[in-house]
Amino acid sequence: MKERMMTGDRVTGKLHLGHYVGSLKNRVALQHQYDTFVMLADVQALTTHFKEPKQLSQYLRLVTLDYLSAGIDPNETTIFVQSMIPEIAELTIYYSMFVTVNSLRHNPTVKAEALEKGYEDLYYGFLGYPISQTADITFCKATVVPVGKDQLPHMEQTRKIIRRFNQLYKPVFAEPRALVGEFPRLPGINGDSKMSKSKGNSIHLDSTYEEVLNKIKKAKTDPARVKKSDPGHSERCVIFTYHQAFANESTEEIYEGCKTASLGCAECKDKVSKSINQLLEPMRERRDMFQKNPSQLDEILMEGTARAQHIAKETLHEVKEAMNMNYF
Amino acid sequence: MKERMMTGDRVTGKLHLGHYVGSLKNRVALQHQYDTFVMLADVQALTTHFKEPKQLSQYLRLVTLDYLSAGIDPNETTIFVQSMIPEIAELTIYYSMFVTVNSLRHNPTVKAEALEKGYEDLYYGFLGYPISQTADITFCKATVVPVGKDQLPHMEQTRKIIRRFNQLYKPVFAEPRALVGEFPRLPGINGDSKMSKSKGNSIHLDSTYEEVLNKIKKAKTDPARVKKSDPGHSERCVIFTYHQAFANESTEEIYEGCKTASLGCAECKDKVSKSINQLLEPMRERRDMFQKNPSQLDEILMEGTARAQHIAKETLHEVKEAMNMNYF
Ligand code: SF4
Ligand code: SF4
Repeated sequence: MKERMMTGDRVTGKLHLGHYVGSLKNRVALQHQYDTFVMLADVQALTTHFKEPKQLSQYLRLVTLDYLSAGIDPNETTIFVQSMIPEIAELTIYYSMFVTVNSLRHNPTVKAEALEKGYEDLYYGFLGYPISQTADITFCKATVVPVGKDQLPHMEQTRKIIRRFNQLYKPVFAEPRALVGEFPRLPGINGDSKMSKSKGNSIHLDSTYEEVLNKIKKAKTDPARVKKSDPGHSERCVIFTYHQAFANESTEEIYEGCKTASLGCAECKDKVSKSINQLLEPMRERRDMFQKNPSQLDEILMEGTARAQHIAKETLHEVKEAMNMNYF
Repeated sequence: MKERMMTGDRVTGKLHLGHYVGSLKNRVALQHQYDTFVMLADVQALTTHFKEPKQLSQYLRLVTLDYLSAGIDPNETTIFVQSMIPEIAELTIYYSMFVTVNSLRHNPTVKAEALEKGYEDLYYGFLGYPISQTADITFCKATVVPVGKDQLPHMEQTRKIIRRFNQLYKPVFAEPRALVGEFPRLPGINGDSKMSKSKGNSIHLDSTYEEVLNKIKKAKTDPARVKKSDPGHSERCVIFTYHQAFANESTEEIYEGCKTASLGCAECKDKVSKSINQLLEPMRERRDMFQKNPSQLDEILMEGTARAQHIAKETLHEVKEAMNMNYF
């Protein structure tokens, strides 16, 4: 039997190249190897977007379209909607009973937010993020979780919560392991260290050929290279990182050409646009296909969610059995 | 249509006279006037008893037996099991998104516990108590909540959370009002200000005739009254409080007899035992009946829970509609 892999995305916007290299590519490559679950995290999206849930329904479908376009195969992968699995909420509540406020404060994401807002002004749901993540992973008894390096402490916390549950009641869950992606972060076209949904520095997976060209044209390069004859420092240039992420060939030549000023930035950008468009072209074709048939997309979501519901029921039954809470 | 009333008990032990005067009596009297929901709070019990859920199943039935014996009529009242309503967990999660940690810290129950244990060592689930209480009340859209005086601040917090929900999304919920009981607290037989499950100072509703006599015999009286000829201070004596709670006649005579030393403590205790046994006698008969037929008790629980589940589904649908989260 295949190991089960659990991943997902907050449905707060369309996916971009950063998502692709950071996780989506991995999922597509691994979906045959693992029994893959991909969660449309609408409930988790509410931790930060509770004031505007109006768009959830729209993003839910856009992100699904991104998945399918990128090569997620609904016959291999279970795509499901988080809010439609009440067992995730129930597990969150059960785990809440034995996790202290203190241990939650040590979670890096919570810490970072607390630094900005002050600890007491955090929302309760936000503070509980490590618990609900544990519920997301355990409802389907996933044992493999692909994450970025920065998320390793979350996984450690998840494992701790699981160990505690197993100790308190019965060993229902195996401890999941993290699978760290090859390219955890892709810089934004403005030079920011990370492409981010909210910062307008992303190249979305649904970009047209021209949109890719234009965004790359506007992208920031090595600021020290003013004239073409100035030698460049590709290690400071997002374009070079994009080459590393998307070029099919070795990037040695680019590096040398930049350093020796034999390669101009315009040409270098053209090359990288081509690589990105090569990646996106088959995605565009698949996207067109699914866009022409929106009911098919809904069916995929409903079938995936039904499968997740079935598994969630079994897990919750086992959890309640371990807690002596199946009364009838 | 009748207003809906929501009440419940944590299933951490059998019920005693303190529960009876503090809430149960009220519920029995009001069950015809309101569409009454009584919750067996097994999930909430876990906030303090997560290490020993083994007994939940036992207490669940014992408390139900206490209800039925005390006169809760399953044809009038919906008795249900909290953990079997996943929608309560789901509502808790949704409310969690917009309630700050700070506002939870101001809840008196949380404050009291934090004073003892230190704030950071609180369990996350315990900290969230006001939120889950709001979920308990709103899942069935109850508008009347009988509470002790000490719980009024909780109700205020519940109303705040509901207002915020209505504001953020749509006005799904009416704000519930508190119904304060006549005898919010009954002192323990050891003189403690409150009968408490955990302190062994209670007279349980399932006490036999002799158990009542013996417990009352051991009860603490006015310590200033050493000899029978010493005048007593009934205002410092739990027995007098019991008279006030359980005697069918005026307690004026007791008060005067105690003050003038014409009434001895032994006689006074005999009188109060008689009153209590008069209250418990019909309960014993009903208890016998249900104990002889345990499958009937399970049926009552399952039917009540099924009704609660049905209503919970409707409410959650409406909540998700308000949040634009019914996707298909
Ligand atoms: S040549 Fe390429 S890698 Fe070098 S600075 Fe220009 S865009 Fe960046
Ligand atoms: S006479 Fe009754 S009320 Fe007075 S001290 Fe004795 S037991 Fe208490």
